[in-house]
Amino acid sequence: MAKSEQGITIKKEENISDWYEQVCLKSELVEFSKVKGTMVIRPRGYAIWQAIQDYFNEKINKPLGVKNAYFPLFIPESFFQKEAEHAKGFTPEVAWIDRELTKDGERLAIRPTSETIMYDSYSRWIRSYRDLPLKINQWCNIVRWETNATKLFLRSREFLWQEGHCVYETEKECEEDTLRVIKHYKKLVEELLAMPVLIGKKSEKEKFAGAKHTYTIEAFMPDGKALQSGTSHNLGQGFAKAFGISFLGRDEKKTLPYQNSWGISTRLIGGTVMLHSDNKGLVLPPKIADEKLVIIPLIFKDSKEKILKKAKEIYKELEKFNPILDDSEEYSPGWKYSNWELKGIPLRIELGPRDLEKKQVIVVKRNTGEKLIIKIEKLKSEIPKILEQIQKDMFEKAKEILDSKIKEIKNWKEFEKAIKNKDIAKINWCDTTECEINIKDKTGASTRCIPLEQEKVSGVCPHCGKPAKVIMYFSKSY
Amino acid sequence: MAKSEQGITIKKEENISDWYEQVCLKSELVEFSKVKGTMVIRPRGYAIWQAIQDYFNEKINKPLGVKNAYFPLFIPESFFQKEAEHAKGFTPEVAWIDRELTKDGERLAIRPTSETIMYDSYSRWIRSYRDLPLKINQWCNIVRWETNATKLFLRSREFLWQEGHCVYETEKECEEDTLRVIKHYKKLVEELLAMPVLIGKKSEKEKFAGAKHTYTIEAFMPDGKALQSGTSHNLGQGFAKAFGISFLGRDEKKTLPYQNSWGISTRLIGGTVMLHSDNKGLVLPPKIADEKLVIIPLIFKDSKEKILKKAKEIYKELEKFNPILDDSEEYSPGWKYSNWELKGIPLRIELGPRDLEKKQVIVVKRNTGEKLIIKIEKLKSEIPKILEQIQKDMFEKAKEILDSKIKEIKNWKEFEKAIKNKDIAKINWCDTTECEINIKDKTGASTRCIPLEQEKVSGVCPHCGKPAKVIMYFSKSY
Repeated sequence: MAKSEQGITIKKEENISDWYEQVCLKSELVEFSKVKGTMVIRPRGYAIWQAIQDYFNEKINKPLGVKNAYFPLFIPESFFQKEAEHAKGFTPEVAWIDRELTKDGERLAIRPTSETIMYDSYSRWIRSYRDLPLKINQWCNIVRWETNATKLFLRSREFLWQEGHCVYETEKECEEDTLRVIKHYKKLVEELLAMPVLIGKKSEKEKFAGAKHTYTIEAFMPDGKALQSGTSHNLGQGFAKAFGISFLGRDEKKTLPYQNSWGISTRLIGGTVMLHSDNKGLVLPPKIADEKLVIIPLIFKDSKEKILKKAKEIYKELEKFNPILDDSEEYSPGWKYSNWELKGIPLRIELGPRDLEKKQVIVVKRNTGEKLIIKIEKLKSEIPKILEQIQKDMFEKAKEILDSKIKEIKNWKEFEKAIKNKDIAKINWCDTTECEINIKDKTGASTRCIPLEQEKVSGVCPHCGKPAKVIMYFSKSY
Repeated sequence: MAKSEQGITIKKEENISDWYEQVCLKSELVEFSKVKGTMVIRPRGYAIWQAIQDYFNEKINKPLGVKNAYFPLFIPESFFQKEAEHAKGFTPEVAWIDRELTKDGERLAIRPTSETIMYDSYSRWIRSYRDLPLKINQWCNIVRWETNATKLFLRSREFLWQEGHCVYETEKECEEDTLRVIKHYKKLVEELLAMPVLIGKKSEKEKFAGAKHTYTIEAFMPDGKALQSGTSHNLGQGFAKAFGISFLGRDEKKTLPYQNSWGISTRLIGGTVMLHSDNKGLVLPPKIADEKLVIIPLIFKDSKEKILKKAKEIYKELEKFNPILDDSEEYSPGWKYSNWELKGIPLRIELGPRDLEKKQVIVVKRNTGEKLIIKIEKLKSEIPKILEQIQKDMFEKAKEILDSKIKEIKNWKEFEKAIKNKDIAKINWCDTTECEINIKDKTGASTRCIPLEQEKVSGVCPHCGKPAKVIMYFSKSY
């Protein structure tokens, strides 16, 4: 294959959308399936999802007492209709199964989210305050019949996610856990994916259909668009009422419980790719890279045997980093470098005859291209430190960019300029849906979140002039 | 709740089918969903599936080089039709999605198995012998529109499984891995689930639709019915041909590769429950029990404080066994014993005032009811040994029963008697589909497998009198 075909042919700064698609496809994370709107998550992509699963299970299972379970893919039509707002929010994008299969009963939907089928079970499982809290999570596939263009990982008719659904005796416990989870999401996304996020509360208009309020983490892509990356909904008592979930309280009275639900999806993979990758291809934070390094021996006729022997020794010694040994002889070192850069392997180890003489190797960082000379005997102890440093540097670089994009806005002119410049406008806002809709119409920017750590609010809304009630971030979004 | 409502009210030996359903439901492993034919896998049941996933991933990922991935839920109709036998085998039970959603294109099926959609991708991914072997596995949900009555875990319209799909350069590698996997399945089922199985090859009639041949592991339930528990199919080159998968061989010629596929499902949970459980409820092999023990302090007024303090100490010390501390005061110890026996907790630790004085506890094994007196200071080191012994004893007991059921059959009369007695008939068989169909019609028994370790074949088929060609096991089956 020619180098030009192999590599990324579109510049990130010129056409981020096409560049992103090329990176996803050519790094072999994912491909379009023959079924419109769906994707095949290839092993390199699925390994990232597994890393997310492992990390998150560890945080929620024992520490939060959440148990994993599995609920049916199919949901009866009547279930949706029990909670009016929820039905309104999801009905347009529900995929139904062939009516022939269910002609003796009601229509069945393929789950676009599982609140309704889970809460039907909960209404049987919960009898007394002793059954609470009930904390259940499921990892599963979700179908939403999107009509907009498919974007790999970011918008597709089927995706993978986790959805947590908990029930509490008191409003206080419920709200505490709702917040705890959104903070866990922030930690996961920042620690594992090196993707800094804003954390906060959604506006009334943008909250989940049927929720009391929604917390969100919002990442920002290089094109100035926000990517909602995880949400945690305080559902109050609305679903409990709609699904007949009640319990005998400590006072022996029938009581409505409080609920929350929360989720993250394979969309996170897309955000990570778009944020960190460059014009050479994929850049992955080391913690989620399945193969953390590639060893490339520089093969010359007279030293071949010695070099290959040492390369194999190094391969063996570094086994726990799941290394690749690229000792094929049909491609040049340059071709190999490009290939593994494209695929996003965090470290490249080059071993040539002169290195061998000096008992050293060249270690090249994928994120910066920086070259380090490392003694072979020190490799095993140095590699973890280098990987850790890359992880840290990637996060900090992204955090600096994010911070520099947040503009404290005083008037409408500044607001328009910020959105035009692909920045994030932070304003003292009136907190009305009417104003929100008007701003969106005029600028394309939507509300992202009211920061969790609420700051002092002052003055008037730069758009409508009404007294400001909250701080709100605005930007364009995916 | 009265004890009679709480416990199992049907005897295993009297009506195994109803008893089984009660055990599944009352031990809270699973429940029927409101959607006909589907089930909710509750946390206690899902924990078993997670244990199976963890065990199997560890065996296949690094050692066999299999990578996990995820392919779409939806499969275009035309994909099925590419392989004729396969289409014939699956079409009757395929669930389609609403035609309205795909009116501009072809009908979409909800995957009943993923050969066809995976091999479409493989046809693009595989170019050269350097791309082989390609070894991919996915854990996912599967839909088959069963019309027979739903049996929890054993037969339902949706279930969870893993499906491995590999492609090889040579027939030899393909066959070796096909066998390797069925042997891994045997090990998993025997080591983890304490469920002994026969291992062998399916008859021509019973092999997978489109396969060259199918290997199987077959467990036997207490009602004399076999439960096919895992299969590994050598697909030969048929699918490669149908899906246009070819590669440039070492000789630079276009070559057809060899393929296999293999799977186990949540059906394994059902087999484990049915095999080991008793009239008190669930019995689980310790290795798959999420909570391995329950501590029950015997609370009396004057010693309450001391007992509870010690019980908590023990709870803390045994934390890694994920213990339950049942120190509620509203139920009697007897009620608690029954409750945790019903739920299948492998060990019960009783701590009363006299035990405390003697610095000991009573440890009761769920599988046999055997009571052991153990010094508290030795608990931490003794518990793992006791759990291991239970695991071993459960397997050996089941193995003895299985061995005793296998009857070496010489003539037709013996055959009929064996099937009537719910035994397994082992015969020297003619290996013809005609004979197989006739035997099934007359006795209800079907072929299970030709043992992997082929024994000497002699004489004639006890049914049709033709010369015997293979050893074959016959029995009724699920």
